[in-house]
Amino acid sequence: MMKSAEEYRESLRALKPRIYLGGSLIESVADEPRFEPGINATGITYDFALVDDLKSTMTTSGLDGKPTNRFLAINRSRADLQDKLEAVRLTCKVAGCAQRYLTHDAFNALFEATWLINETYGGENHARLLDYIQYAQTNDLSIGIAMTDGKGDRSKRPSEQDQPDSYVHVIERRSDGIVISGVKAIITGGPYMHELLVMPCRRMDKHEKDFAVACAVPIDAAGITIVSRPAGRPGNPAAKFSAKFAQAVAVAHFDNVFVPYDRVFIDGETEEAHLMTTNYATHHRHSCIGARAGFGDLLIGAGAMMAQANGLDYLKVPHLREKMVELIKITEGFYACGIASSTMGVHDAAGNFRPDQIYANIGKLLLANQIYDMHRLAHDVSGGLVVALPGPEEDHNPVTSAILSDVLRGHPDVPYEHRANVSRFIEDLTASETGGWYSVISLHGGGSPEAMKLEILRNYDIEARSDLVQALFDRGALEMGKGIKVDRQPGRCCAKGCQGDGLVSGKDT
Amino acid sequence: MMKSAEEYRESLRALKPRIYLGGSLIESVADEPRFEPGINATGITYDFALVDDLKSTMTTSGLDGKPTNRFLAINRSRADLQDKLEAVRLTCKVAGCAQRYLTHDAFNALFEATWLINETYGGENHARLLDYIQYAQTNDLSIGIAMTDGKGDRSKRPSEQDQPDSYVHVIERRSDGIVISGVKAIITGGPYMHELLVMPCRRMDKHEKDFAVACAVPIDAAGITIVSRPAGRPGNPAAKFSAKFAQAVAVAHFDNVFVPYDRVFIDGETEEAHLMTTNYATHHRHSCIGARAGFGDLLIGAGAMMAQANGLDYLKVPHLREKMVELIKITEGFYACGIASSTMGVHDAAGNFRPDQIYANIGKLLLANQIYDMHRLAHDVSGGLVVALPGPEEDHNPVTSAILSDVLRGHPDVPYEHRANVSRFIEDLTASETGGWYSVISLHGGGSPEAMKLEILRNYDIEARSDLVQALFDRGALEMGKGIKVDRQPGRCCAKGCQGDGLVSGKDT
Amino acid sequence: MMKSAEEYRESLRALKPRIYLGGSLIESVADEPRFEPGINATGITYDFALVDDLKSTMTTSGLDGKPTNRFLAINRSRADLQDKLEAVRLTCKVAGCAQRYLTHDAFNALFEATWLINETYGGENHARLLDYIQYAQTNDLSIGIAMTDGKGDRSKRPSEQDQPDSYVHVIERRSDGIVISGVKAIITGGPYMHELLVMPCRRMDKHEKDFAVACAVPIDAAGITIVSRPAGRPGNPAAKFSAKFAQAVAVAHFDNVFVPYDRVFIDGETEEAHLMTTNYATHHRHSCIGARAGFGDLLIGAGAMMAQANGLDYLKVPHLREKMVELIKITEGFYACGIASSTMGVHDAAGNFRPDQIYANIGKLLLANQIYDMHRLAHDVSGGLVVALPGPEEDHNPVTSAILSDVLRGHPDVPYEHRANVSRFIEDLTASETGGWYSVISLHGGGSPEAMKLEILRNYDIEARSDLVQALFDRGALEMGKGIKVDRQPGRCCAKGCQGDGLVSGKDT
Amino acid sequence: MMKSAEEYRESLRALKPRIYLGGSLIESVADEPRFEPGINATGITYDFALVDDLKSTMTTSGLDGKPTNRFLAINRSRADLQDKLEAVRLTCKVAGCAQRYLTHDAFNALFEATWLINETYGGENHARLLDYIQYAQTNDLSIGIAMTDGKGDRSKRPSEQDQPDSYVHVIERRSDGIVISGVKAIITGGPYMHELLVMPCRRMDKHEKDFAVACAVPIDAAGITIVSRPAGRPGNPAAKFSAKFAQAVAVAHFDNVFVPYDRVFIDGETEEAHLMTTNYATHHRHSCIGARAGFGDLLIGAGAMMAQANGLDYLKVPHLREKMVELIKITEGFYACGIASSTMGVHDAAGNFRPDQIYANIGKLLLANQIYDMHRLAHDVSGGLVVALPGPEEDHNPVTSAILSDVLRGHPDVPYEHRANVSRFIEDLTASETGGWYSVISLHGGGSPEAMKLEILRNYDIEARSDLVQALFDRGALEMGKGIKVDRQPGRCCAKGCQGDGLVSGKDT
Repeated sequence: MMKSAEEYRESLRALKPRIYLGGSLIESVADEPRFEPGINATGITYDFALVDDLKSTMTTSGLDGKPTNRFLAINRSRADLQDKLEAVRLTCKVAGCAQRYLTHDAFNALFEATWLINETYGGENHARLLDYIQYAQTNDLSIGIAMTDGKGDRSKRPSEQDQPDSYVHVIERRSDGIVISGVKAIITGGPYMHELLVMPCRRMDKHEKDFAVACAVPIDAAGITIVSRPAGRPGNPAAKFSAKFAQAVAVAHFDNVFVPYDRVFIDGETEEAHLMTTNYATHHRHSCIGARAGFGDLLIGAGAMMAQANGLDYLKVPHLREKMVELIKITEGFYACGIASSTMGVHDAAGNFRPDQIYANIGKLLLANQIYDMHRLAHDVSGGLVVALPGPEEDHNPVTSAILSDVLRGHPDVPYEHRANVSRFIEDLTASETGGWYSVISLHGGGSPEAMKLEILRNYDIEARSDLVQALFDRGALEMGKGIKVDRQPGRCCAKGCQGDGLVSGKDT
Repeated sequence: MMKSAEEYRESLRALKPRIYLGGSLIESVADEPRFEPGINATGITYDFALVDDLKSTMTTSGLDGKPTNRFLAINRSRADLQDKLEAVRLTCKVAGCAQRYLTHDAFNALFEATWLINETYGGENHARLLDYIQYAQTNDLSIGIAMTDGKGDRSKRPSEQDQPDSYVHVIERRSDGIVISGVKAIITGGPYMHELLVMPCRRMDKHEKDFAVACAVPIDAAGITIVSRPAGRPGNPAAKFSAKFAQAVAVAHFDNVFVPYDRVFIDGETEEAHLMTTNYATHHRHSCIGARAGFGDLLIGAGAMMAQANGLDYLKVPHLREKMVELIKITEGFYACGIASSTMGVHDAAGNFRPDQIYANIGKLLLANQIYDMHRLAHDVSGGLVVALPGPEEDHNPVTSAILSDVLRGHPDVPYEHRANVSRFIEDLTASETGGWYSVISLHGGGSPEAMKLEILRNYDIEARSDLVQALFDRGALEMGKGIKVDRQPGRCCAKGCQGDGLVSGKDT
Repeated sequence: MMKSAEEYRESLRALKPRIYLGGSLIESVADEPRFEPGINATGITYDFALVDDLKSTMTTSGLDGKPTNRFLAINRSRADLQDKLEAVRLTCKVAGCAQRYLTHDAFNALFEATWLINETYGGENHARLLDYIQYAQTNDLSIGIAMTDGKGDRSKRPSEQDQPDSYVHVIERRSDGIVISGVKAIITGGPYMHELLVMPCRRMDKHEKDFAVACAVPIDAAGITIVSRPAGRPGNPAAKFSAKFAQAVAVAHFDNVFVPYDRVFIDGETEEAHLMTTNYATHHRHSCIGARAGFGDLLIGAGAMMAQANGLDYLKVPHLREKMVELIKITEGFYACGIASSTMGVHDAAGNFRPDQIYANIGKLLLANQIYDMHRLAHDVSGGLVVALPGPEEDHNPVTSAILSDVLRGHPDVPYEHRANVSRFIEDLTASETGGWYSVISLHGGGSPEAMKLEILRNYDIEARSDLVQALFDRGALEMGKGIKVDRQPGRCCAKGCQGDGLVSGKDT
Repeated sequence: MMKSAEEYRESLRALKPRIYLGGSLIESVADEPRFEPGINATGITYDFALVDDLKSTMTTSGLDGKPTNRFLAINRSRADLQDKLEAVRLTCKVAGCAQRYLTHDAFNALFEATWLINETYGGENHARLLDYIQYAQTNDLSIGIAMTDGKGDRSKRPSEQDQPDSYVHVIERRSDGIVISGVKAIITGGPYMHELLVMPCRRMDKHEKDFAVACAVPIDAAGITIVSRPAGRPGNPAAKFSAKFAQAVAVAHFDNVFVPYDRVFIDGETEEAHLMTTNYATHHRHSCIGARAGFGDLLIGAGAMMAQANGLDYLKVPHLREKMVELIKITEGFYACGIASSTMGVHDAAGNFRPDQIYANIGKLLLANQIYDMHRLAHDVSGGLVVALPGPEEDHNPVTSAILSDVLRGHPDVPYEHRANVSRFIEDLTASETGGWYSVISLHGGGSPEAMKLEILRNYDIEARSDLVQALFDRGALEMGKGIKVDRQPGRCCAKGCQGDGLVSGKDT
């Protein structure tokens, strides 16, 4: 059953996680003001799924055929990929980062990997995962992805660390389950999740089976300690956006945490675990594209408002036109890679769909570098007021507020309060800790640019292109057509009649 | 019936156009060496349509249900848009510029405009066009698009020119047809086309009805004089690509040319003519994306070969890796906009499909500027030999060839001849007239960057984004979902069951 | 007599300005913690002038021949311009923004303008200014530049505003002085200055004489109310830089402030006032180049440290090498424009030297846009820890600190504390309000990019270059040399023997 | 005695080099039309040195105190560096590439290296070089720099090549001189030089003494065979620039060439030879900056003319303004690095001056990548006519010329002929083999971008910047000043009174 935001918040009260924030233990996550913006943002993913106009985007049918939140669903078609992309953009353009799509990325990656494990070795991993997904769908859970390890000494492999807890690993295998220990860093939304999904963050060698572990635990399982940063800038009156919507990131220490087998999805299958991390990256980078496009929507809208509040028509002043187009070009330029990645999505052997890897990586790579240009353009259309406006406390200073609101009002028809609001909104999104967080998370979240470049090089068929040039040297034009390949034919990857064929069925069926 | 390249070339002999090249009248276009690369490139679009493996991409069903070349077809689904995009890339990665896709762009734009004209005013324009398209499909014609006018004094409108022939216009309307005069510039493939399709290149005022004319004429109609540039660098042994495949551009002077009414598609309907130019731009910019992606394929392939011929592994040398990824990122980055533009294609009221305007314009804008980066990257991975290698005449100089081939061979396993071939291929594509032509045509072809920016600004919903920010100021999160819009929902633009719905029918039907 | 930082701070106690911060009146500026980082940063300019090794850079001889701080001096040679540039970089690479160089920029611009006023109209303006400069040098003052007006309705001129105080202007001229009213925004270091120097911020029309006013007033003159933002992030333990060094910006309301004539430098000379604003811009943009190069030094140093703390050798890992070079290229690329602007400095008719306008504007334009790339590169070499590290309060949490310092230490030889320090330093400089301030102030401070472009276009001799091309069309090679100009010959702008000639005297004298 | 261009051309007739071009032996270089543009461009460096207004830039005093061409002189001050930079720009903005400045670069690098050799090992190398320089100055010679070896198999060192002639090396040492063999590639201006100066192109190992050879030989020395490319596009009526001015590049095979000892400057001193190549790179990259700034002057001038011929005011049309500023910003941005490199020039122990390495490398790196942007901007301001204009043969076709000149004239006051001239001039410079040559030579000439990055990293003091950050962590502000370094103090590198001190002597002496 799908929850409302309020029901989600209430459901957090039933959990008793051990969470530190600013050096102190948190009594009640649901009532902690410094987590409030994070809970609000997560709440958007709940409430929007209940809004009639948004349902076709925000929900789909779950494993049992009942409606479920799209962020908990397995993709059954290329259209699902595209709908997920739009759902991410939709929630992020309201909440900045909707946090919950990471669950989708993990579920789909595990779906493929556990299916393959059972195809190869037999076993019940895939069935366990399906049970768990059903459990998440039925209870409309928020699940934190605990993937990035603490890592310790970067020059050593996981198994070589002096401090073995640098990576989460299995320390004991019992008859009824496993025991894990170690540290996971950078868990998005960590403190206000219902569960944590533990997954390996890199390729493990064959002898590092203990480190190739994927499993799910309740957030308040015995042995888990979480250290979180606050979500956004709660309580700051200048934080026009991030006092309301934001994200916390947390570090979790797993100290002898027991996990029953029905929640263990990968345990030592190093090869499939590696495939899982690669596929997770593809799903996640595709999602990141939607998220940052939503951020682009906010900057485009706010930049236009600021120009207007300054008394300028952004459609007429040439340099403003230029910069507005640039902002749009960047945002829709990388979003186009997301769409292309949906359209060219791959029908995995396990039966679900995965975004095309090349376009997902290029889109993420583009946004990673261009988020800085987006900040620049937003500042350029906005002007210097963004960092010069006196603070909100001054708005009600009887000595100064009258004269300030008179002379710092740009356009005569726009009240000072509105101009101040927009100015602080842009400052919050681009020139504050919140802005810094968006930059760095865009650059490094889902893997840093070098990781994307590696993935592109690994998968792009450069040789086919060299063969083409060689063919031009060797053979006549007529003959050439015979060996030449059409690059990509969406919807033709599998037999007609399969759901994935949908994207071109208008023609082929 | 679809022709082979050889049949196409033969068919040109039946025509007697009046064509000047290098100041002299051309006897036989089909036998003129300076047009040979252009005829070869056009020929690729014929031959490839006959190759079994390429048929599903290169052909579709025509108006009469029989197979036709995709470059002569009306799009009936989003999949058609994507197949056309791939057909353009396919032919251009072999022939550089396939020239014939402009016919597709014009046919589809006229299809929409003439339908609207007849909806609005009645008449037979649309039926005439369908007849003409059927004629073109049945005879597998190559049709040059005569759109860009001579323009004369840029500070004056078409109707104000001292020299009225600066723009093609109707000078007489007879009972059986119209008479047109004026100059069209930049006709791609002009001399070796079967027909010319005359279309207005800009918005005409209501009183400029005579200038709002679209009609078709045989290339050798009385009164037409064509002045052409040669196609590529024919006969130049260093021109490893453009001695074989290239394009001619031509200027055509229409001097009292009679056009019977069954070949007149627009005559004075200024508003619909303007819509036609806008929609042509969208179709054409979408096509340009495919064309330049094919160019990207050539550079990626050749760059990799050159690095190897230099003795370097482009997957291992860090700066080569970096630049190869960059080349791929640029090429697939703008191609992704083409795919997105197909996926989000619009079902026109006339019944055909048009690429999404925003993505088509962004993709073209990206390639327009980035073609220069592509040249730079190709040069960077190739090294300085590209402009330092002695000319091909030196390859057989008995005094010098032995020592040159010894010391200018990079990798010991790669013969000098191969390295020289690749070096000259890259020089031809990026550091010769051919390279310059690709640059400028990428920048200005289909409209210059400023035209794309204008189109993006005109069509992008900035206000919806400002409304979103305002909503964030005004209302609570829960309530917000109610008014918010999902940006784009492919395949939901029209009623279920329509052909265009195909893109999501996997889910919706 | 030159003060120490401590003497400067002490001297502030003698003043009683009316300053609001966060809505409250400030008792003692010198003791206000929220101004502390700003006073520290200003203090650096005092203390460094007393350090033997730095004296030749930080000081020069004043009007009376005694040593004075370079930020209060009039440039007497091109070497002075270059020494000033280095003094700015030197202080800014320690203090982020040294604030006091704006005084230099204003003094030099007023020096030129008042000299011209007296040349043209007679009078004592220049002498008054010299007296004031001597007063500032003798007392080693910090003087805030009150230039940017409140501006009000951007679509109206200063004289047309509904609220006349939108711009500071003369409201009364008495026998002993003038009375001014109005609002000045964005005063760097406003609260902890000794005096304010009021100057017009734009061209005034002939009839706007009342708005063309430049004069000096003590910070605590009757009628001045200042509303300030805090300086940096004082008291924030995560603010590794900006808790120590930062800048406040303030708005000042002048309400019937009396200024005696010996402190009035421009009053109604609109043409010379406009020249002053243009020349101020040149001096100031030149200074900005030095300031942001100092910021670049900090990022280069911290980026290298962070890479090392992550366990990586930035000279060996290819992508780190690439990004370090990029950071250096940007920083030294715009700094080179500063040097060029010094080397090509202009000997003003008044006798002082002004940086070359073209290079000063290009350098500022480059840094304005590239500050965002600098942030990106710093983040790229640093990794995601910058926004994921738990806050400093967690460093001493007995429950979590041991495990965190174990697993979040990158290189085994680098203590966790060091890695955390560097990470927070980079976060502070690039991903916090401080980082946002540096971005926006780099973009818009000293005029926004559009202002620089305008200035470049106004001053660059494009026509000489068109003449060159025309000459190539018209004339033979030999003859051409006769009319052709060498672009710029440093040190040859005035007669030999003048001080400015120094830059080439090694050859010419 | 300084020659005129005509005397230079005449002097070539006295030489009998063995030169192949297009597979044939050239009878007389001075009369070969395909070398004419190269001889013209070299001639500019002669004629300009005789023009009164240009003498102070183009000449200086030689070793014997008599006037000599600056491109043959040793730098005696920073002002000399700057004058050389301007001389390069001056000649290149007329002739595209003046070719002869490479002699300057080699002379200065050898000056330093031979001085060091004699300081270290004794001997007469430096004296021999001085004699040779005096010989060159006295006879006003053009000397080709034969540096880049054939290289053969890139994966092997010079001494390991199967074909030993892949690198020029000493094969015999006689009592009266040495005998060398091998291939040098990419010799600028090769065929129409008086002499060739052979120099090693890379670091040689200690055991590769035979490869560390620098010596001078007459162009027609026995055993030299030269294979050249033509200079530009001679005889091509569309080549508005490169039919008149251009450069040839050549390959030279040295087959048992005898060099008497008084022309041998380095022979086996591998360490000093390596230093020579590094210093040559610095001198040469500094020169390249001037050369490409001259190219920028041509593009800026021609772009402005083309916009005007199109009927547009580039100062008013916003997007043209933007692009003209961008062209200026790029050109002067890298030229500023050249000026900075002069201003910060280093006084070598040998007594001459060398440009600052960091700025010379950054400037060259900037132009290497931005030449492509310059092409783009030139195309953008020019419009598509650049590749669509019918060829010059058509200008006199009686059938078509009248109508073409009517409708292809843009601005009514600008004759068609002028617009065509400017269009072809831009096509020639940016969209032809000439344009391609400028791109690739800018990218790879004087070393490819990776070489510059390496040099920057090797020489930039990153550690000092990390120390600075560490000092900020460790110490108080006051104390800090004591250890801190001012980055660069021009003119203070050596004792007062030395010539190099000139740049700041206006202040210090």
